[in-house]
Amino acid sequence: MQTIALLPGDGIGPEIIDEAVKVLKAVEAKYDLKFQFKKSLVGGASADIYGTPLTEDTVALCKDCDAILFGAVGGPKWDKLPKEFRPEQAILGLRKSLGLYANLRSVILFNALSDASPIKKEIIGEELDIMIVRELTGGLYFGKPKGIERTHDKTRAFDTMEYTDEEIKRVARIAFETAQRRQKRLTSVDKANVLETSRLWRTIVTDMAADYPDVKLCHMYVDNCSMQLVLNPGQFDVILTENTFGDILSDEASVLTGSIGMLPSASIGDGKPYLYEPIHGSAPDIAGSGKANPIACILSVAMMLEYSFGAKDAASAIKNAVERALNEGYRTFDIQVGAKKVVSTSEMGDIIVENL
Amino acid sequence: MQTIALLPGDGIGPEIIDEAVKVLKAVEAKYDLKFQFKKSLVGGASADIYGTPLTEDTVALCKDCDAILFGAVGGPKWDKLPKEFRPEQAILGLRKSLGLYANLRSVILFNALSDASPIKKEIIGEELDIMIVRELTGGLYFGKPKGIERTHDKTRAFDTMEYTDEEIKRVARIAFETAQRRQKRLTSVDKANVLETSRLWRTIVTDMAADYPDVKLCHMYVDNCSMQLVLNPGQFDVILTENTFGDILSDEASVLTGSIGMLPSASIGDGKPYLYEPIHGSAPDIAGSGKANPIACILSVAMMLEYSFGAKDAASAIKNAVERALNEGYRTFDIQVGAKKVVSTSEMGDIIVENL
Ligand SMILES: [Mg+2]
Ligand SMILES: [Mg+2]
Repeated sequence: MQTIALLPGDGIGPEIIDEAVKVLKAVEAKYDLKFQFKKSLVGGASADIYGTPLTEDTVALCKDCDAILFGAVGGPKWDKLPKEFRPEQAILGLRKSLGLYANLRSVILFNALSDASPIKKEIIGEELDIMIVRELTGGLYFGKPKGIERTHDKTRAFDTMEYTDEEIKRVARIAFETAQRRQKRLTSVDKANVLETSRLWRTIVTDMAADYPDVKLCHMYVDNCSMQLVLNPGQFDVILTENTFGDILSDEASVLTGSIGMLPSASIGDGKPYLYEPIHGSAPDIAGSGKANPIACILSVAMMLEYSFGAKDAASAIKNAVERALNEGYRTFDIQVGAKKVVSTSEMGDIIVENL
Repeated sequence: MQTIALLPGDGIGPEIIDEAVKVLKAVEAKYDLKFQFKKSLVGGASADIYGTPLTEDTVALCKDCDAILFGAVGGPKWDKLPKEFRPEQAILGLRKSLGLYANLRSVILFNALSDASPIKKEIIGEELDIMIVRELTGGLYFGKPKGIERTHDKTRAFDTMEYTDEEIKRVARIAFETAQRRQKRLTSVDKANVLETSRLWRTIVTDMAADYPDVKLCHMYVDNCSMQLVLNPGQFDVILTENTFGDILSDEASVLTGSIGMLPSASIGDGKPYLYEPIHGSAPDIAGSGKANPIACILSVAMMLEYSFGAKDAASAIKNAVERALNEGYRTFDIQVGAKKVVSTSEMGDIIVENL
């Protein structure tokens, strides 16, 4: 029995979580799995009732579970709140409370949707499957000291990019292990010709490669990587990088697919639970209209099955079911361009279940 | 009379500089300009004779000139030298000696070459013309302290991103003035939701906008900008950003054109001389074969005429001549795909001169 915390959140969050649960229930019997679900409010939905986007009860509930499925948070209703009460604090707070230091973003272009890419077909090919492992809790965004100093004649602002050997090792380990489960190619991205943090990063990752002899490691400078993602994205299997570079490169990579509403992610730490979520937002403008695309959330469930429960077969089955639904021509509102069979959120969930 | 320092450097550097000089001579009479040229060795060519990639004599010669045209440096012959003797130190040393703190990279896609872009035509359009203004001497790459500390149980590496108000103002001024000469739209890129340096950056740039009422300023987060460059590059006129973000974004932007060998750049400081150079390298493998594309160097001369000599007409004439040569079907080796009229380096120079 695996317990899964469901945190639907705001906007389209609840609708897409419903479809993901539908899929989880469908794989239970078939793959000899058993799930128990525990639901809780987060984001604006939580702020409305409890005055905070993430209650201690919700954190406690999550810590008691084996995995967390997070929908999406935020909306214009809560935009005026002070920063610490905003819905977005829910996900930041959870990552922190649970020690989730690695963010895995899956950049998948399905053959059926390859026309949606902004990149020419002869470059992007028929399909794309990159996994970006981004360090999530260190580096420039969190390093100390940071601040703004004002003297009588000058103002100086500063931030610190810092990494310890242990911070680098633990995220690199996840990247190596991820590569082992995939095409066994790892590209570590840094700026080792200029930055001390990158120099340490490169040394440690290079040393660790000896423990993963089946993984082919290469290093790439971040500015070159931003070019290579456009020029030849098919060269990448797993990309490992630090927080700031990962922020920029993972967003660049995600738009190569032309359907950012399709992409799942995982946040991983040293112990369970890990957290899974679509990378898209809460889309309050289409909430309740049946226009939401549940596929990113359903693919997040596939990542959960693989990474948290070791159920690789069930994970593959879900990915294949999504692919079949797309190949049969079914499309939600956001990916409907030229499609004949436009379906609602729950219809798409049903079709994917049928294809399992 | 304007004096121009010519620093051909290594590989194809001398060949492309020859063509650029040809163009400068051709505009002299027509636009009532008068140039005097002073040549000096840099890079590997200087290291071979003087034991250093940049001599004090060369720096002194440059300081005496009104503008500098730099070719390209480097090659396998000098790759084994210790860092401080490598050809690349020539350009770093010059920027430092001359206080060149703003790097302007022109991202142009000519209609005739629009098929070469990796981006679909319906997205990139027929033409593209973005100017990226990157802060060049501050930020994370140069901030202090930086280093690696080792204690008995832990290693910690750190770099500092820092900016003073004056450093931000001087580069922003150049960006606002550049926008005034173009489409009058300026996008300032930062990560102000996370970084203190970005918060100061955004505050200062916002305040300065009052002095440039004709320029429409907007702000964009760096991760969003990396997406927007792929999704809708035509939205940008001038992009202003700090050193590290500029490194990543300018490289990403340059490959959107599909012909990185076509792109010029300028490095600008508070007083003359400014330095102009193609963004491509020295391409030692094709040096001397007539295969080098002189257009990036010729367009660098156009930037020189505009930025150093205020000769906007002459600059436009050169750009138009390049465009006509391309429209007539002439191509150098690197951009020859499907072309009927493949010409040598000096033939391309001659054709551009004829089109002036
Ligand atoms: Mg981001
Ligand atoms: Mg670069």
